[in-house]
Amino acid sequence: MSNTFGKRFCMTTFGESHGKAIGCILDGVPAGLEIDEEFIQSELDRRKPGKNAYATARKEPDSVEILSGVFEGVSTGTPIAMVIYNTNQKSKDYSNIKDLFRPGHADFTYWEKYGIRDYRGGGRSSARETAARVAAGAIAKLMLKRVGVEVKSGIFKIGDIEAKEYDFEYAKTSEIFALDPLVESQQKETILKAKEAHDSIGGAALVRATGVPVGLGEPIYYKLDAVLAEAMMGINAVKGVEIGEGVESAKLYGSENNDEMTKEGFVTHHAGGTLGGISSGDTLDIKVYFKPTPSIFKPMKTLNIHGEEVTCELKGRHDPCVAIRGSVVAEAMAALVIADMMLLNMGRKMDDVARYYSKNV
Amino acid sequence: MSNTFGKRFCMTTFGESHGKAIGCILDGVPAGLEIDEEFIQSELDRRKPGKNAYATARKEPDSVEILSGVFEGVSTGTPIAMVIYNTNQKSKDYSNIKDLFRPGHADFTYWEKYGIRDYRGGGRSSARETAARVAAGAIAKLMLKRVGVEVKSGIFKIGDIEAKEYDFEYAKTSEIFALDPLVESQQKETILKAKEAHDSIGGAALVRATGVPVGLGEPIYYKLDAVLAEAMMGINAVKGVEIGEGVESAKLYGSENNDEMTKEGFVTHHAGGTLGGISSGDTLDIKVYFKPTPSIFKPMKTLNIHGEEVTCELKGRHDPCVAIRGSVVAEAMAALVIADMMLLNMGRKMDDVARYYSKNV
Amino acid sequence: MSNTFGKRFCMTTFGESHGKAIGCILDGVPAGLEIDEEFIQSELDRRKPGKNAYATARKEPDSVEILSGVFEGVSTGTPIAMVIYNTNQKSKDYSNIKDLFRPGHADFTYWEKYGIRDYRGGGRSSARETAARVAAGAIAKLMLKRVGVEVKSGIFKIGDIEAKEYDFEYAKTSEIFALDPLVESQQKETILKAKEAHDSIGGAALVRATGVPVGLGEPIYYKLDAVLAEAMMGINAVKGVEIGEGVESAKLYGSENNDEMTKEGFVTHHAGGTLGGISSGDTLDIKVYFKPTPSIFKPMKTLNIHGEEVTCELKGRHDPCVAIRGSVVAEAMAALVIADMMLLNMGRKMDDVARYYSKNV
Amino acid sequence: MSNTFGKRFCMTTFGESHGKAIGCILDGVPAGLEIDEEFIQSELDRRKPGKNAYATARKEPDSVEILSGVFEGVSTGTPIAMVIYNTNQKSKDYSNIKDLFRPGHADFTYWEKYGIRDYRGGGRSSARETAARVAAGAIAKLMLKRVGVEVKSGIFKIGDIEAKEYDFEYAKTSEIFALDPLVESQQKETILKAKEAHDSIGGAALVRATGVPVGLGEPIYYKLDAVLAEAMMGINAVKGVEIGEGVESAKLYGSENNDEMTKEGFVTHHAGGTLGGISSGDTLDIKVYFKPTPSIFKPMKTLNIHGEEVTCELKGRHDPCVAIRGSVVAEAMAALVIADMMLLNMGRKMDDVARYYSKNV
Repeated sequence: MSNTFGKRFCMTTFGESHGKAIGCILDGVPAGLEIDEEFIQSELDRRKPGKNAYATARKEPDSVEILSGVFEGVSTGTPIAMVIYNTNQKSKDYSNIKDLFRPGHADFTYWEKYGIRDYRGGGRSSARETAARVAAGAIAKLMLKRVGVEVKSGIFKIGDIEAKEYDFEYAKTSEIFALDPLVESQQKETILKAKEAHDSIGGAALVRATGVPVGLGEPIYYKLDAVLAEAMMGINAVKGVEIGEGVESAKLYGSENNDEMTKEGFVTHHAGGTLGGISSGDTLDIKVYFKPTPSIFKPMKTLNIHGEEVTCELKGRHDPCVAIRGSVVAEAMAALVIADMMLLNMGRKMDDVARYYSKNV
Repeated sequence: MSNTFGKRFCMTTFGESHGKAIGCILDGVPAGLEIDEEFIQSELDRRKPGKNAYATARKEPDSVEILSGVFEGVSTGTPIAMVIYNTNQKSKDYSNIKDLFRPGHADFTYWEKYGIRDYRGGGRSSARETAARVAAGAIAKLMLKRVGVEVKSGIFKIGDIEAKEYDFEYAKTSEIFALDPLVESQQKETILKAKEAHDSIGGAALVRATGVPVGLGEPIYYKLDAVLAEAMMGINAVKGVEIGEGVESAKLYGSENNDEMTKEGFVTHHAGGTLGGISSGDTLDIKVYFKPTPSIFKPMKTLNIHGEEVTCELKGRHDPCVAIRGSVVAEAMAALVIADMMLLNMGRKMDDVARYYSKNV
Repeated sequence: MSNTFGKRFCMTTFGESHGKAIGCILDGVPAGLEIDEEFIQSELDRRKPGKNAYATARKEPDSVEILSGVFEGVSTGTPIAMVIYNTNQKSKDYSNIKDLFRPGHADFTYWEKYGIRDYRGGGRSSARETAARVAAGAIAKLMLKRVGVEVKSGIFKIGDIEAKEYDFEYAKTSEIFALDPLVESQQKETILKAKEAHDSIGGAALVRATGVPVGLGEPIYYKLDAVLAEAMMGINAVKGVEIGEGVESAKLYGSENNDEMTKEGFVTHHAGGTLGGISSGDTLDIKVYFKPTPSIFKPMKTLNIHGEEVTCELKGRHDPCVAIRGSVVAEAMAALVIADMMLLNMGRKMDDVARYYSKNV
Repeated sequence: MSNTFGKRFCMTTFGESHGKAIGCILDGVPAGLEIDEEFIQSELDRRKPGKNAYATARKEPDSVEILSGVFEGVSTGTPIAMVIYNTNQKSKDYSNIKDLFRPGHADFTYWEKYGIRDYRGGGRSSARETAARVAAGAIAKLMLKRVGVEVKSGIFKIGDIEAKEYDFEYAKTSEIFALDPLVESQQKETILKAKEAHDSIGGAALVRATGVPVGLGEPIYYKLDAVLAEAMMGINAVKGVEIGEGVESAKLYGSENNDEMTKEGFVTHHAGGTLGGISSGDTLDIKVYFKPTPSIFKPMKTLNIHGEEVTCELKGRHDPCVAIRGSVVAEAMAALVIADMMLLNMGRKMDDVARYYSKNV
């Protein structure tokens, strides 16, 4: 089940970048949730390419169709299948890379693992698959909204340019989802400069969840922070994940890093919303670091499937900074993780179990 | 199955810091592996506390006993149960914290999640549980050795003091597993200074695996890097995880970050051993960042289970830098992940399946 | 993952009888398997209703479309998504049962479990979902064929009329998949008599697999026979499952029931192909007992969702004997189980693991 | 995870018949359940051999020790590890079968699967492992008791002698757990006759659960009846499983088999407590058929590991009718399945989820 994510709120995706369709089955959605299809589509539109100069010019309408699990606008508790037909695959763009391994891509490892290759633009390893995650994440968000949880995200870093303040409302309207309006133009410039140089640039997103109930996350091997780390590191191009203080925490003293508690709540927020891997009720902060898009238009040395040294010269249309659209995916994955943990958490206290069944019997 | 890790090479742990015993069941070990019990014990001894000034003075012999799954020194393919009896629980040390939530600890979140609490020193959330992971990881290492994979680790950072070079052989003999002999004394000093100030300090470990076969890691949701991130973030006190270039990759250009390929292999090693979440055959590099031990001997403000504001004044014996012993756990978890991925990877090509069964039928 | 079956060869289905479509994602198919779409369709046609007097007159073309996972006719190792659009849903047929619980159906239990109901003909609990299993089972069969395993089935019992001999070749051509030509006409008569009486009749199928390799099945909780029992009991209307001698074995003496071994193989075949839950290499025999279709055209007392006593008078088109089409599903499920067990079995011996990776490294 | 059973109430067992110990880790027990250790021991005593002439004379005290997960008599929500040390392994009894395959046993299949063998009495495939299931099942029963569910069992058939009435209270006091006092002496005689003839005899148990809440069981692939079938077929020596009318249902007409509903409940009980795989709230009836113990004292033809034809002459102490002690195991497994399904069922309705978290936030 390599293509399945989650234990109770459980997504299985399918599809290749240049196949007929991509999509997913979302299993475990509680019955009786209103499924707002427009909201799902609007989330997909946030991830959609082709909107501005900071993303690939490739246009994909990414129209989602729900095939099952929803009746009269409401979830029935049965699997929700969603499909997005591929409509804009320019297969010819990829003919020149048919048998070589693009540096920084999964071409080599897929070839070694499976001995076969859908050479048309990454196939299954293409970031196109993440559209399915965003669709599923949108349904997770609908469920989270019902219990007062909000998940949001934005870009805090492009190359060397880092946000000083985080304004998630601003990020929603920014073409690059920038969290800090004061550095946004510098960040945009960095992207355009990379693009003009036929290159790409890295970036980083902050995902924040508020209203998360205390007690989510399973010890010892399905901790909230651990599963978030898996979810984030599993997104295409991600190379680093932090919870709360993250990498910086290694520099700190315990007296600096510990968050004291008062009746008003936590005094500081170094932990980033988890203690012992379980949500503390404090704001959840996850930082996700994306490498630069490996697809660049400079010639690179590589091998082909016959083991010969060749030069890779890519054409086509690619994101100059994969972090931007990646942040939408990170947000969706966080929503999926929290939704899953919420369902998993029910039934952890005997009194809750007894109360539930005395009500239902 | 919140206490289970892995799909094919699968560890389930049990035990609390102050209960009768801790241990694990390791399921999926292939039959016919020589189980070197002395090696398992030697790995536990590396994690064992009480050896020097840089770890807690608490002495735990951590003697492991194998209850099943091994016959005449060889694995039989049945579950290997291992138990480590607790022998040095000073429960009295914890009486003053019986009903308060130690800052930075899981006391609060466990209380909220389960409504009940084994107040004797962390119970299940104590790092003591990680001894079981080290025992299981030792068996993973025995399996990996058979196929030429080596997993090693060391400390590259304590507070602000960072290694410039990585010498894994040196780390084995260092009291703090330091990778760089040139900064080791400064790192030791940093720890002792924190300890003298009744404080603690953060740190970071590098885990490296060599000889990893190409093709390990399952797309899309059981990627090698993603599962490593989960495994690492799930270790007590870890707040950040990087693969290869990690957080730094967000600053780079694609032309800098892409690893070109020649017949001699990868020219550079930014990726850290995975492409598309699948092992590339290159050296695997994982960086793991630990927060400072939350148990410090300075008074801290907190709440108790009745919601009252109280002062937490810890006694007892604690690690001044949890990263050191944590690095041994990180190494064990990496070994477990790689072993699991190796078994999962078999049967991915139809030709391999056909060859396997033509041989066996 | 209530809608997922299998661990390595892993099917997740979706869809309701009167929704847009049904289908599945099949994950874990080894790369490099030729996917014969005509064969998949021909398997679906065997299950398809509307072909003769012994099945419902409802016509469903059941045309399957593959959306992913197959490139140039060959599996790529990525998830194979298959969709069957619903084309012949006469929703009006069901309007008179909109708010009552049909006796013998899942209407009541779904209502209680989910508090919501797609009242159009069973929704998710309809046997229509099993078309997806047959499509997935067809791919399992393609894989099994490559290693010399054949799975076949037939009807040995309709009401009181039981086969004396099993001719699987004959069953393929029989309208009711009868195993014994000598009792076929009596069995047909029994069905027609039930149909004319506006009633239905039970029946039973024998599923047989030959060429099964020794060693399939995981002890202790994923035994071949146990998972087959789950797979069969999980088919709509199944109430009993036997392996080998089955229920009869409770009457026997050990000296009668034990299968002695000689160099020619097993002398007798009471075990039905498993020992200790693991395949013995002998022919695998599973008997599956179906209750009569609950949808009959006689008035029945029942309750509605308001708790009122009402009379249920069904219209529409229903199978007079659900065992017949059910046998095709049972065969598909057996193929899925065996395929899953084959992949799970790889990597159980350390020597195999070492050999595999020495070849691949 | 071949040695793990259950998804939320999740048991992993370990141990061989002649190793140091057997036992299990039970994960997912809700926190706050009183753990009555005497009750657990009393359940083990019901399964314990050596009590009378109808079971093996082998004496095993089967004293269970809880190593974790219980604090001050109450479950903490952490894994409960239980260990039973083996004390009465007469390894010498097995020396004459060291390298041959006992007919009807798993010797051959384990050898083929693992290429290695703990020849001392079955090793992992021995029914001794089921003691761990009974211990875990006892904790499941404690949880079920809190919500009014009772699971009980008894023997309804030994060889040809079948119960006409089911008296579960009587069964508790019967040496052979006989459900019908009127046929008990005949059943006992049948066993003794088999024993005197150095033979064994089959038998069958009825497991009944009352008070089961409506709505347990997950569609489509984790149905209550399907998982019960898996659980039962996975018990050593079981060859057939029925729910409700079972095998007989294949003979019936729909008008006979359908259970009509009135305000008083179901009029008849053919379904055996499930509809569409989900519990209906009606009494749950499962019939489990055991083959005769394969260990008999008559000479049998077999092969040894070198492929030579040899005669198997067993010594030692064996149950003349494995169904009797097996019925206790079947009861335990049913309790485990129901407990698991109860926890899985929570969170299926959005209103329940919202209510739960509004309460807890």
